Amino acid sequence: MVAMERYFEDFGVGQTFGSGRLRVDTERCKTFAAEFDPQPFHLDEAAAQMSLFKGLAASGWHTAAVAMRLLVSGGLPFANGIIGLGGELSWPRPTRSDDILRVESEIVEITPSRSKPHQGIVTIRSTMFNQNREAVYLLTAKLLVFRRPI
Amino acid sequence: MVAMERYFEDFGVGQTFGSGRLRVDTERCKTFAAEFDPQPFHLDEAAAQMSLFKGLAASGWHTAAVAMRLLVSGGLPFANGIIGLGGELSWPRPTRSDDILRVESEIVEITPSRSKPHQGIVTIRSTMFNQNREAVYLLTAKLLVFRRPI
Repeated sequence: MVAMERYFEDFGVGQTFGSGRLRVDTERCKTFAAEFDPQPFHLDEAAAQMSLFKGLAASGWHTAAVAMRLLVSGGLPFANGIIGLGGELSWPRPTRSDDILRVESEIVEITPSRSKPHQGIVTIRSTMFNQNREAVYLLTAKLLVFRRPI
Repeated sequence: MVAMERYFEDFGVGQTFGSGRLRVDTERCKTFAAEFDPQPFHLDEAAAQMSLFKGLAASGWHTAAVAMRLLVSGGLPFANGIIGLGGELSWPRPTRSDDILRVESEIVEITPSRSKPHQGIVTIRSTMFNQNREAVYLLTAKLLVFRRPI
């Protein structure tokens, strides 16, 4: 894996990357929500059926965290790690328990730093799909990336 | 609390809301990162000292999840819950263990739905501060909000 890890000068606009897969567990959806997003439609099947979601939905922040796990675990081969400065995100549809998720990413912009010659910003556009190839999460993120050490 | 919960027609641009406070725990930073963002600067003090962060930093997604907890637990008095469609976020500086965090939010835009008369979009701009009143997280989010049931 190390041989595939890339530095700033190795990236180009249009390069694409795919992650592994992760299955979302019902109990983990509920415990994540209990800690960070305790709303009825994330905690209780009956309440969720009565809600806008028409069934238990993972917290959007759980969805975002799972996407990060997929990116860190091989989804983006950045040698210095994935250091996000910020970005835009959306949840076009809910993540359901037992969904099997996968992230596909594309580099959409590369900007060398003006003041720091050893680093730059790589903007990636990532989409996380469920097992039916429906997008559940879109993230466009600006990542800090370093040049290869001399 | 119920009496203070608000519906779409109760909101106006410029209204502000403050959350309670939450302290970030070192061990929870590490277990969150181990599950969702297993990078050395989130897991190990010595590795973090050698990194860009110059010390253990919470995962940005842990930071985002803590902000959601503060919003759900009184930080935004939305009667139908906090249902995010998407937004923009950034992390202007790291969240450190033992930071005590608080969110302040302002309504920046209100858009009635054209097709669904009982709902609309409320855009909020939230800032999460640490105990030194330094911003660690900025979120501008579009939230789905319902009118009061008749």
